[in-house]
Amino acid sequence: MSSHFLGNSCLIENVYIASAGLTAGMVEAQGPLGQKFDKTYEDHYCGEDSFEKGERKMLQDALNFCLQKAKKKDKDIDLYIGSDLLNQNVTVSYLMRNIARPAFNVYGACSGFALSNALAALLIEGQCIDNVVTLVSSHNATAERQYRFPVEYGIQKKDTTTFTATGAVATLLTNKPTNIKVESITLGRIIDYKQNDPNDMGRAMAPAAYDTLMTHFHDLNRGFDDYDQVVTGDLSQYGHELLKEMLAQKKIYPKNYDDCGCLLYDIHNQDVFQGGSGCACSALVSMSYFYEKLLNKEMKRVLIVSTGALLSPMMTFQKETIPCVAHAISLEVVE
Amino acid sequence: MSSHFLGNSCLIENVYIASAGLTAGMVEAQGPLGQKFDKTYEDHYCGEDSFEKGERKMLQDALNFCLQKAKKKDKDIDLYIGSDLLNQNVTVSYLMRNIARPAFNVYGACSGFALSNALAALLIEGQCIDNVVTLVSSHNATAERQYRFPVEYGIQKKDTTTFTATGAVATLLTNKPTNIKVESITLGRIIDYKQNDPNDMGRAMAPAAYDTLMTHFHDLNRGFDDYDQVVTGDLSQYGHELLKEMLAQKKIYPKNYDDCGCLLYDIHNQDVFQGGSGCACSALVSMSYFYEKLLNKEMKRVLIVSTGALLSPMMTFQKETIPCVAHAISLEVVE
Repeated sequence: MSSHFLGNSCLIENVYIASAGLTAGMVEAQGPLGQKFDKTYEDHYCGEDSFEKGERKMLQDALNFCLQKAKKKDKDIDLYIGSDLLNQNVTVSYLMRNIARPAFNVYGACSGFALSNALAALLIEGQCIDNVVTLVSSHNATAERQYRFPVEYGIQKKDTTTFTATGAVATLLTNKPTNIKVESITLGRIIDYKQNDPNDMGRAMAPAAYDTLMTHFHDLNRGFDDYDQVVTGDLSQYGHELLKEMLAQKKIYPKNYDDCGCLLYDIHNQDVFQGGSGCACSALVSMSYFYEKLLNKEMKRVLIVSTGALLSPMMTFQKETIPCVAHAISLEVVE
Repeated sequence: MSSHFLGNSCLIENVYIASAGLTAGMVEAQGPLGQKFDKTYEDHYCGEDSFEKGERKMLQDALNFCLQKAKKKDKDIDLYIGSDLLNQNVTVSYLMRNIARPAFNVYGACSGFALSNALAALLIEGQCIDNVVTLVSSHNATAERQYRFPVEYGIQKKDTTTFTATGAVATLLTNKPTNIKVESITLGRIIDYKQNDPNDMGRAMAPAAYDTLMTHFHDLNRGFDDYDQVVTGDLSQYGHELLKEMLAQKKIYPKNYDDCGCLLYDIHNQDVFQGGSGCACSALVSMSYFYEKLLNKEMKRVLIVSTGALLSPMMTFQKETIPCVAHAISLEVVE
C-alpha cells in the first residue's frame, strides 16, 4: 500500500536503487572523488564539436553505464525523467530522441537530482510504473555561456561565485528490491529571501535548504540524529556557513551535516571559488561517495537535500530577486 | 487500487477535475472562444511593466479563479506542477514564491498542459497526494522575444509560422469525485523526423502527435470511435493536415479529429498565420470549449494530445533538427 503525503513529505516503502552511471569532467576528475566516477573526460568537449554536444555525450555515457550495471536495455525502462540546466532542457531532450520510451523533463535548477528522483519514487510507489531512469547533467562551459559569459572570455569572478560542476548521472529506480532503498522524500516550496546577487547563489539558496530540512524533520518527526549524514546540494562554503548559522539560531549544531559543493572538489587547492554547484554536483557526490558508503554498510541512512536557484538572466535584467528551492530524498540500506 | 502502466499509458480510476481558471490575451479574446475565458486583458502587459510580469499576472489571475471556483485557498493544495515556455520556467517559479506549498516545473514545450495534468493524475492515482493544481501559461510577446525576435521589431514571418497563444490556465485535480474525471493518460516519447525549420513547428510536431495517438490506441485497444472528440495541441493548419495524411496512409479517416491551434482563433480572419501554438493553446481550448461540452454532457469522452517542439535557439544555431513530443490525457463525464 502506498503511503500518504505528510505535509510536504512521503515515506516510501517499495522503491529501490538498482544502479547508477556517473561521468564527470576534467576538474571533477582531479577532485577527491575523481576515482569513483565511471568515466571522466580530458576536455570540455568530451570528443564532440560543441560544449552542448559534449554535455549530451557525458549523459549518454552515464546512461550506458547505468543500464549495463543493471543488465537492462534502454527499451526496458518504463519512463525517463530528465533534469538539466540548459534552456529548454535540450541535453535530455536531444539525447532521448534516440530512445523509444516516454520521457519528460523537470526543472528545479540545481535541485534536479533530488527532484527527479523524488518524483520517480512517488510514481513507482504509486504502482503505476515499475521503473524509472533519472537523467541529470550540468556542464561548466555550457552553463557559464548561458547564464553568465562564455568561459573563453576569461571574465573575472566574484569571491562569492560557485563553480558549475561538469558531470552527468543516470540512476535506475525500481520496485524490485535491491540493497539500497529510497526511504522518504520531501518536495520543497519556493523561498525568496530577496537576495538579488546572481554571483552569490549559495547564500540565496541556504534559506530554501533550511526550509526543506525543517519541513522534512517536522513532517517525519525526525532530526539530524536520524541520519548518518545530511548533505545539501550546492550551497558551497558561504551558503553552507549561512545554513549552519540559521540552524544555530534554533540551537541545532549538527556534526553530520555537509554540503556536496564542498565535497566534490578540494576547495582549498582547486580553482573553484566557493565550491561546486550545478545539477551534477549533488548527483555526483551522492551517487559516488554516499552510495558507496551505503553499499558497504558504513552508513545506514543518508538525507540528500539538493538546492536550486530559480533565476534567469532575464529576471536579473529586470532587477528581480532570486527565488530558490530545495527538494530532499533519503536513501537507506535494506536490512 | 491503482492501475498499471500499459506500454506508455495508464487507465486512471480516481482522479477528477474540480475546477479550472482561464485567462487570455487580447487576440484570444477576439477569437471564437473569447467569451468563455474568466478574464482577458487589453494589452500584452496585463497592467504590469514588463511582458514577463504580465504573463505572471495572467497566471496568478487564472490560479485565483481556479481556487475560488473550488472554494479552496492556495495553502489547501498539496502540490503545484507548472509548465511554461520561458527559460528557467520563471513564470511559474516567480509566481510560486508567494505560495507556501511544494512546487516544481515540467518542461515539454507546448505539450505542458497534457504533461502536467498527466503527471498530476499519476501522482493522485498513486494515492500519495490528494490534490494538485497544474499551472500552464504562454505569452506571445515573451515567447517571440525569447525564441525569435521582439515583436516590436516587426520581423516578417514565414507562411508556415504559428502564433504563440497568450493565456494561462490553472486546473485543480483531486481524488474527490466531481462530474468530470481524468480517464487515461499516455506519456509520449521524443520523436525527431529531421525537420530543421524552426518556423514550421506544426509539421515538425505532427509525427510525435501521430506516435502518441497510435501508442494510446494500441495500449488501450481503442480508436477514434472511442472518443467524441480527439484534439491535438498546436499543430495548426499545416501540421493538422500532415497528421491527417499520416493517418490516411493507415486508412484512418477520422471525422472527430481537430487541432486546438485551429480552434482558438478564427484562422481565416485573424492574423495568426497557421493558427495557435504555445502551452496555453491546448489548455485554453480544452478547459473552455471541451470542458464545457463535457459538463453539459454534450460529449462523453475527449482525448487531448498536447504537442511540443523541444528545440532551443542554441540548437538551431548548431544546425540541429527539432525533436518533438506529444503527451495525452482523456477526460470523461462521470455517470
